[in-house]
Amino acid sequence: MSRPRAREAGVRFGDVPIGSKNAITDVEGVKVGHCTLRKGDGKLIQGEGPVRTGVTVILPHGDDLYSRPVKGTYFALNGCGGLTGALQVEEFGKIDSVIGLTNTMGMASVAEGIVKYTLERNPLAGIEHDTVIPVVSECDDSYLNDARGLHVRPEHVFEAIAAAGDNVSEGAVGAGTGMVCYDFKGGIGTSSRKVEVQGEEYSIGIIVLSNHGEREELTIDGVHVGKLLDASNPHRKENGSIVTVIATDAPLDARQLRRIAKRAGMGLALTGSCARNGSGDIMIAFSTANVHDRYPEKRFVLTDNLLVDNEMSALFRATVDCTAEAIVNSLFKGETVRGRDDNTVPGLPIDETLQLLKAHGRL
Amino acid sequence: MSRPRAREAGVRFGDVPIGSKNAITDVEGVKVGHCTLRKGDGKLIQGEGPVRTGVTVILPHGDDLYSRPVKGTYFALNGCGGLTGALQVEEFGKIDSVIGLTNTMGMASVAEGIVKYTLERNPLAGIEHDTVIPVVSECDDSYLNDARGLHVRPEHVFEAIAAAGDNVSEGAVGAGTGMVCYDFKGGIGTSSRKVEVQGEEYSIGIIVLSNHGEREELTIDGVHVGKLLDASNPHRKENGSIVTVIATDAPLDARQLRRIAKRAGMGLALTGSCARNGSGDIMIAFSTANVHDRYPEKRFVLTDNLLVDNEMSALFRATVDCTAEAIVNSLFKGETVRGRDDNTVPGLPIDETLQLLKAHGRL
Amino acid sequence: MSRPRAREAGVRFGDVPIGSKNAITDVEGVKVGHCTLRKGDGKLIQGEGPVRTGVTVILPHGDDLYSRPVKGTYFALNGCGGLTGALQVEEFGKIDSVIGLTNTMGMASVAEGIVKYTLERNPLAGIEHDTVIPVVSECDDSYLNDARGLHVRPEHVFEAIAAAGDNVSEGAVGAGTGMVCYDFKGGIGTSSRKVEVQGEEYSIGIIVLSNHGEREELTIDGVHVGKLLDASNPHRKENGSIVTVIATDAPLDARQLRRIAKRAGMGLALTGSCARNGSGDIMIAFSTANVHDRYPEKRFVLTDNLLVDNEMSALFRATVDCTAEAIVNSLFKGETVRGRDDNTVPGLPIDETLQLLKAHGRL
Amino acid sequence: MSRPRAREAGVRFGDVPIGSKNAITDVEGVKVGHCTLRKGDGKLIQGEGPVRTGVTVILPHGDDLYSRPVKGTYFALNGCGGLTGALQVEEFGKIDSVIGLTNTMGMASVAEGIVKYTLERNPLAGIEHDTVIPVVSECDDSYLNDARGLHVRPEHVFEAIAAAGDNVSEGAVGAGTGMVCYDFKGGIGTSSRKVEVQGEEYSIGIIVLSNHGEREELTIDGVHVGKLLDASNPHRKENGSIVTVIATDAPLDARQLRRIAKRAGMGLALTGSCARNGSGDIMIAFSTANVHDRYPEKRFVLTDNLLVDNEMSALFRATVDCTAEAIVNSLFKGETVRGRDDNTVPGLPIDETLQLLKAHGRL
Repeated sequence: MSRPRAREAGVRFGDVPIGSKNAITDVEGVKVGHCTLRKGDGKLIQGEGPVRTGVTVILPHGDDLYSRPVKGTYFALNGCGGLTGALQVEEFGKIDSVIGLTNTMGMASVAEGIVKYTLERNPLAGIEHDTVIPVVSECDDSYLNDARGLHVRPEHVFEAIAAAGDNVSEGAVGAGTGMVCYDFKGGIGTSSRKVEVQGEEYSIGIIVLSNHGEREELTIDGVHVGKLLDASNPHRKENGSIVTVIATDAPLDARQLRRIAKRAGMGLALTGSCARNGSGDIMIAFSTANVHDRYPEKRFVLTDNLLVDNEMSALFRATVDCTAEAIVNSLFKGETVRGRDDNTVPGLPIDETLQLLKAHGRL
Repeated sequence: MSRPRAREAGVRFGDVPIGSKNAITDVEGVKVGHCTLRKGDGKLIQGEGPVRTGVTVILPHGDDLYSRPVKGTYFALNGCGGLTGALQVEEFGKIDSVIGLTNTMGMASVAEGIVKYTLERNPLAGIEHDTVIPVVSECDDSYLNDARGLHVRPEHVFEAIAAAGDNVSEGAVGAGTGMVCYDFKGGIGTSSRKVEVQGEEYSIGIIVLSNHGEREELTIDGVHVGKLLDASNPHRKENGSIVTVIATDAPLDARQLRRIAKRAGMGLALTGSCARNGSGDIMIAFSTANVHDRYPEKRFVLTDNLLVDNEMSALFRATVDCTAEAIVNSLFKGETVRGRDDNTVPGLPIDETLQLLKAHGRL
Repeated sequence: MSRPRAREAGVRFGDVPIGSKNAITDVEGVKVGHCTLRKGDGKLIQGEGPVRTGVTVILPHGDDLYSRPVKGTYFALNGCGGLTGALQVEEFGKIDSVIGLTNTMGMASVAEGIVKYTLERNPLAGIEHDTVIPVVSECDDSYLNDARGLHVRPEHVFEAIAAAGDNVSEGAVGAGTGMVCYDFKGGIGTSSRKVEVQGEEYSIGIIVLSNHGEREELTIDGVHVGKLLDASNPHRKENGSIVTVIATDAPLDARQLRRIAKRAGMGLALTGSCARNGSGDIMIAFSTANVHDRYPEKRFVLTDNLLVDNEMSALFRATVDCTAEAIVNSLFKGETVRGRDDNTVPGLPIDETLQLLKAHGRL
Repeated sequence: MSRPRAREAGVRFGDVPIGSKNAITDVEGVKVGHCTLRKGDGKLIQGEGPVRTGVTVILPHGDDLYSRPVKGTYFALNGCGGLTGALQVEEFGKIDSVIGLTNTMGMASVAEGIVKYTLERNPLAGIEHDTVIPVVSECDDSYLNDARGLHVRPEHVFEAIAAAGDNVSEGAVGAGTGMVCYDFKGGIGTSSRKVEVQGEEYSIGIIVLSNHGEREELTIDGVHVGKLLDASNPHRKENGSIVTVIATDAPLDARQLRRIAKRAGMGLALTGSCARNGSGDIMIAFSTANVHDRYPEKRFVLTDNLLVDNEMSALFRATVDCTAEAIVNSLFKGETVRGRDDNTVPGLPIDETLQLLKAHGRL
């Protein structure tokens, strides 16, 4: 019996219409792939397991990212986390690598995997052309996973990329395998919006790697579900993080994408978070419009068609709502996981949650 | 018949206890003063009125700010607004002036007023000692006010400072006189929290100058009040801003205060905002702890006692909730104002609002 | 007997060719105007004088800036100074006002002057359209000027704008009237470069308001002139600032202009500065390319033609050299000024300086 | 016959006295270790060589960095480069890992090496305590090195740490093995200063990984050596980067260290750089004062003794000069290296350089 997504269960997140898959892949060309690592049970034996981790990759378009970077940026609502490539993303306003997500200490392996993958496709990179600086972010899954065992390896990036497609599995998959959200099982969640701006329709798609918050904080559509649920789930000692990746085909440059990325933090707030101290709340945003070659042939001035800022509010609204929905999806799809030292994180009890929403005038 | 504050009417904003006045002045030493400018009615005659504007000052402590700066910082969730002194605040992590709030094009007058006020108290400033760079921020009240008339003058700063005290009037007073919040009358609102951190009690106090949002967005304690209210209030064409000033006696430096300031944006989100394009959503934060002389006599290494970051989450929680409460207070206390060209902004209908909250399981 | 500009005297600043006027006005459309305030002598009587101050305005193009903003940004190498409008410039990547320079505590007056000037030209501003947030920066001229007297008034902005043209007076004029640079008379200096990028020629023009440094630091074309000069000039107790305004017709957006602005700090370094603590070293940069209407009629996606970053190095080189030349021009053109309390700042002794350069293999 | 350091050859870099070793290790407790990888000659065979690369580690103190972080920060003059851990460094104002330098695509391996090294020393990390986010930066050595071969491996971090000590080899060692500076052989260079501030003596030590610039730009003590040298060295097509690590025992927090880091860019300018587009010019700065435990036992408010900003100018001066000297040291000590595809980068011709300096009134 599969767990429903939040919207399937009737939960509402604002009035902006969703895309056909209600996933980040509703943005034309975006693909997502997971490599899930799950092995062993019981007591922690460092290097052996239990393993509850993985890799998730987001491919902004079907071409090679190194040779065809997208406009991109990031915003750290709370910088208690890792993001390789951050300086270059900010300097040039572009993302020129597959975006990799994994557990904190798996970042090096994923970075190396992306380097190898990129070198394979770009024979001049690192000789005549630029070297490769990948974009990788992370959350800490050590409550369920043998994090010290460094089980993520570079080849898992290749597996995740090979598996990439339009259908985005949610919950305890890929990088989300061992993640915990508001003391329930979280991990991967996604959602999308269709936004009309002066007659043009743009898509926004969001994927989260949710690993943050305390149960008492959890809020769904304004109802303080976390406080009201009669749950006996254990409380993690330290609070994890959330990485939010935002894709859009709206023609925005890095400055404007940073405005979008900041609004994702407002969507996070709607689910109850206060961005606790240890929570690396990092947003990455890119646009698939105005993509140019890294080495454009004999062209030195390139044309960008950019939405005027005055028309961005509808995108902001969509971002806030869509972020909240992606997070709640990660909870709705997150099944109970038992992991390291038998630490167990229960899936959000969906029936009780829906009853609480109903009792508060929702649904 | 006076309008109640939100909490008096039973609205809840989280579980953190409030201070005795539930105002920014619960932070020891902080004072707030208003100078309200209200003159004329009917059709706009530039330079004559109608005038619906004013000045609000926040005094971080009882001493002179220039000679005894407080640790301080700012964060621009959306930088569509003005904040004089921003660069110096960031460079030195201090606020060394009275903080002034007013309408956008009144900033110059308020800045000049603070300069004059500071010069009077510091005879060496601008001769042997540093010149004065004031800290002033703003929202746009031109929907109700003859903004082009530039009615705010430097002397109004002196009046606001003379009126400063512990009791903070809310709603359409001071800088808030002509402000509009979610298409209802907004302006000044305040709230406070007492936070226990490892046996020590710290205060956080927040004051907002609310002038942002569209009615449909307004959310109170998770209930989408704005959509549900049967209100016929007019919709402003462009969306204003919100300035949030956060005071605390928790021993935090500028880096940590910036972390606090970012969380105020999450409280703003709880009231429904998505930080629309034209909304200058600016947070200013200061701590009254670790205050040193500007020119310490023969001391070149000074001691700061600073809270460890690991203990900041309780302050973050308090900031989020307290910001939301201050905003809703600005609405609860905002009485209907008719202003420029008979533009009229209604006060939030409190009874209907409370009924909606009740119908959704609140109160 | 007029003092020569540095290049007229044979001093070299790199190999990039200069524009026809070797001034910021070599960038098509840019104009500069000064209003110089000079009154009284001898002992300081606050409010009476001596007055040694003024206003300098930079007009990025011939149209109204509010209705036709230019791409722009700023960078604070050292944020010990004031820059009104900074948040909005950063948020939107544009400068939408005349740029005003003056003394520190004259900022409010210049801001008000620009507001009034802009309102006159934009009858809908502050009613149907946005209010006005001007861009004003400053240095502290209190060593020579009765700074506490607040002698700069809004009308001086109008005078400076009325006087604006292509010919840029340098030295002790406009905002530079009372400024001190490396303990010599500084103030206004300008320079320009013509940069060829892949067959296209772009102009960069720079104007400085120089008020920074200690004599011992002064370096010209690598020669430590300040240490070697047998000068007996007095040493100011605290170190002033430098504002650098960079104009270009190269098609750059705010992100790229920020890269340019950072390089101006490297040019500052070539003249010997280490950006001392009290020196507000602020760079403002704008491009006259890709100018759009503030309220474009029925167009919501606008086209920018932007230089690729890979081709920016030549502009960086030009910026570094041109900044250094502008600073040295402010010294070469700065005649001795006696001011407040008979404080006297000597002009750089040009003959001795040139002899030192010659003795070190220059000229 | 060993090449002299710049100062041994009589070159001067300002008047601030140097430390006993004129190295970053003059800051008490700081250690530096190299692991140099050099293998093969001639034509590139990817994965085999030629190998001209390595790892350099900077240990801010003798304790474990994870459990005893130092105050730290970074500044990207030009963010065209990689710096893992950047977000966390900025959020908390601390550096809590060994600092690793290597070639661009070796970053992942060095990051993994630091993770492993840290886990070994901290048995609770990644279980009860925080996971590890290392601080690694890089330059691109692909002109001389088989960069695509990914020859740097995690164990090289252990070797570099094992080799760490007070004596800092310069030139083509460690991470500097394959680096190129102003088209001459660069790599590792170091220098230090002793700064007296109001009777207290503080040390500043700097180490650079120099890989930037074009020959024509090279300037030493103000003399345009690069233009004047009769050198026939080849010109790299793209311009590398420079990483500058600044250590001090002056009691500074992250905000103040960022001020220091910015001044290193001014020292870079003195050697002729304009921070070309492709040059990742990254500064990392830390202070060994005010070190606290990561998990202080039952203490929640910690004491920092911090230098007042008003006294920082002497440190700024020292930073500028010291950076320039460290860069020139990397050139003076850089011997000719032949590498990948017989690409050859000559060492700076020292005799000719000194003659040029003498001819321009130096030495």
